[in-house]
Amino acid sequence: MKKINIALCGTGNVGSSFIDLVLKNKQKMMSNFDIDINLTLIGSRKGEIDNTQFEGTIEKDILKVPLNAEIDVVIELIGGTDISYDLAKLSLENGKHFVTANKALIAEKGSELFELASKKNLHLGFEASVGGGIPIIRTLRDGLISNRVNWFKGILNGTSNYILSKMFLENQTYESALKSAQELGFAEPDPTFDIDGTDAYQKTSILSFLSFNGEISLDKIYREGINKIESLDMEYGKELGFVIKPLSLGINYGEKLFIGSFPAFIKENEILANVNFETNVIEVNSENLNSTAYQGPGAGGYPTSTSVMNDLIDIGKGKVFDYFNLLNPIQIDSFDEFKTPRYLRLMVKDEPGVVAEISKLIAEKNLSIDNLIQKEKQKSDEIIPIVIVLGECSEKVVNSLIKELEKLPKVKSPIQQIRFIN
Amino acid sequence: MKKINIALCGTGNVGSSFIDLVLKNKQKMMSNFDIDINLTLIGSRKGEIDNTQFEGTIEKDILKVPLNAEIDVVIELIGGTDISYDLAKLSLENGKHFVTANKALIAEKGSELFELASKKNLHLGFEASVGGGIPIIRTLRDGLISNRVNWFKGILNGTSNYILSKMFLENQTYESALKSAQELGFAEPDPTFDIDGTDAYQKTSILSFLSFNGEISLDKIYREGINKIESLDMEYGKELGFVIKPLSLGINYGEKLFIGSFPAFIKENEILANVNFETNVIEVNSENLNSTAYQGPGAGGYPTSTSVMNDLIDIGKGKVFDYFNLLNPIQIDSFDEFKTPRYLRLMVKDEPGVVAEISKLIAEKNLSIDNLIQKEKQKSDEIIPIVIVLGECSEKVVNSLIKELEKLPKVKSPIQQIRFIN
Repeated sequence: MKKINIALCGTGNVGSSFIDLVLKNKQKMMSNFDIDINLTLIGSRKGEIDNTQFEGTIEKDILKVPLNAEIDVVIELIGGTDISYDLAKLSLENGKHFVTANKALIAEKGSELFELASKKNLHLGFEASVGGGIPIIRTLRDGLISNRVNWFKGILNGTSNYILSKMFLENQTYESALKSAQELGFAEPDPTFDIDGTDAYQKTSILSFLSFNGEISLDKIYREGINKIESLDMEYGKELGFVIKPLSLGINYGEKLFIGSFPAFIKENEILANVNFETNVIEVNSENLNSTAYQGPGAGGYPTSTSVMNDLIDIGKGKVFDYFNLLNPIQIDSFDEFKTPRYLRLMVKDEPGVVAEISKLIAEKNLSIDNLIQKEKQKSDEIIPIVIVLGECSEKVVNSLIKELEKLPKVKSPIQQIRFIN
Repeated sequence: MKKINIALCGTGNVGSSFIDLVLKNKQKMMSNFDIDINLTLIGSRKGEIDNTQFEGTIEKDILKVPLNAEIDVVIELIGGTDISYDLAKLSLENGKHFVTANKALIAEKGSELFELASKKNLHLGFEASVGGGIPIIRTLRDGLISNRVNWFKGILNGTSNYILSKMFLENQTYESALKSAQELGFAEPDPTFDIDGTDAYQKTSILSFLSFNGEISLDKIYREGINKIESLDMEYGKELGFVIKPLSLGINYGEKLFIGSFPAFIKENEILANVNFETNVIEVNSENLNSTAYQGPGAGGYPTSTSVMNDLIDIGKGKVFDYFNLLNPIQIDSFDEFKTPRYLRLMVKDEPGVVAEISKLIAEKNLSIDNLIQKEKQKSDEIIPIVIVLGECSEKVVNSLIKELEKLPKVKSPIQQIRFIN
């Protein structure tokens, strides 16, 4: 029986669940996998933990953990890129396998850490960093890597999906949906990284790395949060047969590769359109497989800990995957060139000639209007919404159109733009 | 670089796709996985193949293939349990790893073959046997096995799903939907094994083996085909908010374990209800993960071949999984005890008192009627449908009720019964 000694750093929600899971499943690991996993050391700045079953040592100085000679694997469930980064480097330098749920760390420091792990022939596991309990990292790595990924589409941020689902399905406002997410623990007290798209674009970069076998520089990934979406846009979407979802997209056209993370209109019968609330989903289209989709809980203590356990089983079974090997130089194209149909919502003073002025500017850009919705006004001199669905056009062209439209005296700024992704 | 010599037996649709895939991806396998996969021998009773790129030997006598000393892995893409079974045994006895897409072989002979593979320390790969290109076998084995599976629900037979989707979404009759499936190649000229549930229940037994880590005897799995479903039932389903799907179910209540494969009413907003046409899906609910779902193409040459390739990569990487280890003795309960709400459709002579007679028999069994739908008759003396939704009741009780109802002079036999699965 293979015996591995593990140390855990970080004892928040995920860390506590992990302690419970690893202690409860010790016998099962031994009988099913022939691996004896011993949690012998916990790094906790507080110096104490709630779990009374743990019989090992608690170390207040986190950075001393990887120096312990008895430890084979260091597990990092702290988050952020400060102490976690130091911990990762120290662990690998000291010959410890490293397992993390930290998307920011992998997205920002992955290349350097994979190189270090490769040199030392150590495993750097990050299954828990994307999609919580959904085994998407190993699926992309083991299951799909033998054939070229054409595109992936995902809902990777549960908070954003929860808020937009509440708005769409229960007609809530953005503010009340966010409040409900916070009350249920699906959103942090400070939800900035969820709703401004930071969390989703870090995860997008990790999926892109595995999908396209290349080094992904974060600044090449287009990013937009969900915080500008209004109930009005949801309603127009319903009318058009589309749902707004927090989309993560990587698409390889062969000559061009685009990666982005932004709210998008998805046709109502598509897989992603029907994945609601805090659930995550990843749909992958590849050369020989066509589309496969994976959905499940994208966060939470036990789902995330299950993914950490799976990395530990890999290590116990002697599987060291060399991710450094996949870090090929690849070209990611500027999102300015990305072409897709667009939804524009303009708030205009309803005076004669306004539609003509708008249409003229659109025609000058050689863009086609697929649909124009103007509701009857309720009273005179009102500001009313006009929705325009443009056929396929690039970011560059639509952005210059929006600038010109916003100069029209009858049009209020800013104009709302949402991409249709089919 | 690890070099492995493989032999393929079976050159039908999947076999031909596999030959193409393995020859096209040789370089990629070498650079990405450090494995040199050589297809050097093909067993084909015809003695010839279409692919002109293949430069190895063609052997007409299939059973001579595993005797070839150069071969490391034998791949079986023939189907059935006659020659395939002999081939499997011969391959393992002669020290060859064995990879197959054959669900019948694994469902019926798995236990014996896993034991043989275990003794010889060889890998028996069957990723392609369930869900075509969906990596569900490795996901259950590697990703979920560290936590207890509560239940799985799947749509595992693409032909059945295609037919029921056509009936539901396009109002086709069973016969025209089957014909369209045959024309598009989604159903065999003889579709018996698809529509009578044989294919699905073999796959169900394989998923049950991995989900519940036990030896699954096929005769303990309840089986029912889709061939008794009528358009009328689809229409009533729509009215009630349910879709009929070809369901495979394994459910572990702790004390009781039920496994079955049968058409069922699924609530219209559930994951499975929205997976249509030839697509397969497996939803797994486990202790620490809650629900995760996996969907994709359940058949087809390239998807199935991709799964075969993934087994080859495992072998190339030296991963030998001992499935024999998972063959624990487990108790599968008789489906007679399975409790769920039921839909009964009775065709009755619309005479006074018929509903009272029916209700009386139901009351005598202490069963509750959740819903009763009786449409107004169009002309007198007509045979009309009465639909009754019963609250939760066991197979045993509902079957004895049906027998008694069928004895009523005003009720035509047989009565349609469909289970609701939530």
